[in-house]
Order: sequence, then structure tokens, then C-alpha cells
Amino acid sequence: MEELPRQLPQDDDSRFFRLIKLTYAKVQRPFEELFKGQLTALELHVLCELKVSGPMTVTELSERLRIPKQQMSKLVSKMALAGNIVKKRTVLADKRSVRVEITDEISQMMSAKCLGYMDAIGKTLEDNGIDRMQFVAAVRFLTDILDRIDEHHIPPQTNG
Amino acid sequence: MEELPRQLPQDDDSRFFRLIKLTYAKVQRPFEELFKGQLTALELHVLCELKVSGPMTVTELSERLRIPKQQMSKLVSKMALAGNIVKKRTVLADKRSVRVEITDEISQMMSAKCLGYMDAIGKTLEDNGIDRMQFVAAVRFLTDILDRIDEHHIPPQTNG
Repeated sequence: MEELPRQLPQDDDSRFFRLIKLTYAKVQRPFEELFKGQLTALELHVLCELKVSGPMTVTELSERLRIPKQQMSKLVSKMALAGNIVKKRTVLADKRSVRVEITDEISQMMSAKCLGYMDAIGKTLEDNGIDRMQFVAAVRFLTDILDRIDEHHIPPQTNG
Repeated sequence: MEELPRQLPQDDDSRFFRLIKLTYAKVQRPFEELFKGQLTALELHVLCELKVSGPMTVTELSERLRIPKQQMSKLVSKMALAGNIVKKRTVLADKRSVRVEITDEISQMMSAKCLGYMDAIGKTLEDNGIDRMQFVAAVRFLTDILDRIDEHHIPPQTNG
């Protein structure tokens, strides 16, 4: 058996893959399914980014979602045609730029759709006697940390 | 403005979308990129499920990943041909079934690849003076809750 690059407790490793598995199966997939037939997974994540972070350029969007700029540019044009987003030309100092913005209509639709998912979490907390505020605090703690991870520190490829 | 089906504090809503956005941009996408050109996102999540939960049938896999059974069946055959998984015929009581298992080789490769990502998290914790054990405890707390969410409680479609 080839030796791993560095020794980590086995427990760390399995916890990481458990987190990947659960955020996919219990967060991302159910969320994507709410919009099945209406929005692709990628379109949904573009909208989610714009809903949370506000208007931004195509370059910023492509960096945040780790998608090639050309691909993002095409996607944004398609979504603008579908009426999910609007492109706004702005003049900042003497530099012109186009910023992309989510429409109020789709933003409100997304908020309405996610209520069912939040109900399912609420029910899980209730059924298991877990304090709602403790859950909220844990989510806040973790999202704050995730937000601070510098993507540029994550190597795109390791020598495994 | 149309009224939302039920009143929720605005804060809850934005925290939910922030969680979706961050788990996608800072967990799922970097993880998928580690295996770019080698494994598709869906293949990766199949392997992740098998690595964490052990061998299971195609039906179980399709339910856990919320993918139609027929699509999962094709994918499993493709992955078996590529040598990432093995199909094992088992006879339980008088019922025959085929269970799918991840190969040791790909399981070890996945463990090795994810070290870079774990380093990035470790660096973020260190840079921000966050206690590593507090982070581990928060991850454990949240994954335990996610694990208990009954997918069947999540409505596939709400009237938004």
C-alpha cells in the first residue's frame, strides 16, 4: 500500500467525506430538485450567488463559482433572455462595466420555494429534541468559516 | 408584492441561501475540481457515498443520491467498466442481489487528493484564530442533524 503524503487521523478523513456526502444528498440535491424543470443546477447557483451577494460582473461570478469565464458569459446571456437576471451597464470612474443582477420576481420565487426545505429541517430538529438556536448558531459559525476559506489556497490538483 | 405562504424572519431566509451558496462554492466545487478530467461530479458523489456508507444496491444508491434508478444503473455499469467500482453478487436468504462496492485503489486516491482541501481549511482556522476542536465539534453537530433529515419530508415541489 502506497503511503499517504502526510499522516492524518483516519477519523478526520471519514468526517470530511461524510460532510461532502451529506451536503450533497441533504442540502444541494433537494434544493436543486425544488427547481427541477425550471432551472439547471448551475443556473440555480448563479441565482443563489446573486441573491446573497448582490449584483456583480461576469468575471466575479465566474471566479466565485469556479466556472470558466467564457462559459459563464454564455450562461448569463441565456439567463438574461429567459428573464431571470438583468444586465446593467454602469459607468464607474472612467471605466465601463456590465453588472448582472437577479430579478425581484425570481428572487421571491426562490424564497417561497425553499420554505418546504426549511420545514423539513425544522421537523428534524423538533423530532430529535434539538434546540433550534443551537442549530442556527452552528450554521452561522460554519458559514462564517467557509466564507473565509481562500479558494486560492485550495490547490486544484494534488499529487495523490 | 405577493405575500409569502408563511411568514419567516428575513434573516432565516438569507442564512439558508448563504449556506447553499457557500457549501457549493467552498465545499462541493473545490472537491469536484480535485478530480477534474478523471471523474464527473455525479461519479464522484457515487464514490463518496460508497466510501462512507459501504457497499449497497443500485436501488439504495439511486434513492440516496436522488437520481432515477435507470440512470444510476447505467452509471454503475460505466463505472464498473472503468474499474472504479465492483459489482458483487450476493445471496441473502433466498434472495439474490447485486451490491456495488468502491475499489480500494480509488478510495485511497480520494483520501490522498482531499488532503490539500483539508490543509486550506486548517490554514483558514489558524489565520482566523479559530479553535480546531470547536470547528470539528460544529461539523459533527451539523452532519448529525443533516443525517437525520428524512428526505421524504422534503416536498419535491411547493406552490411558490
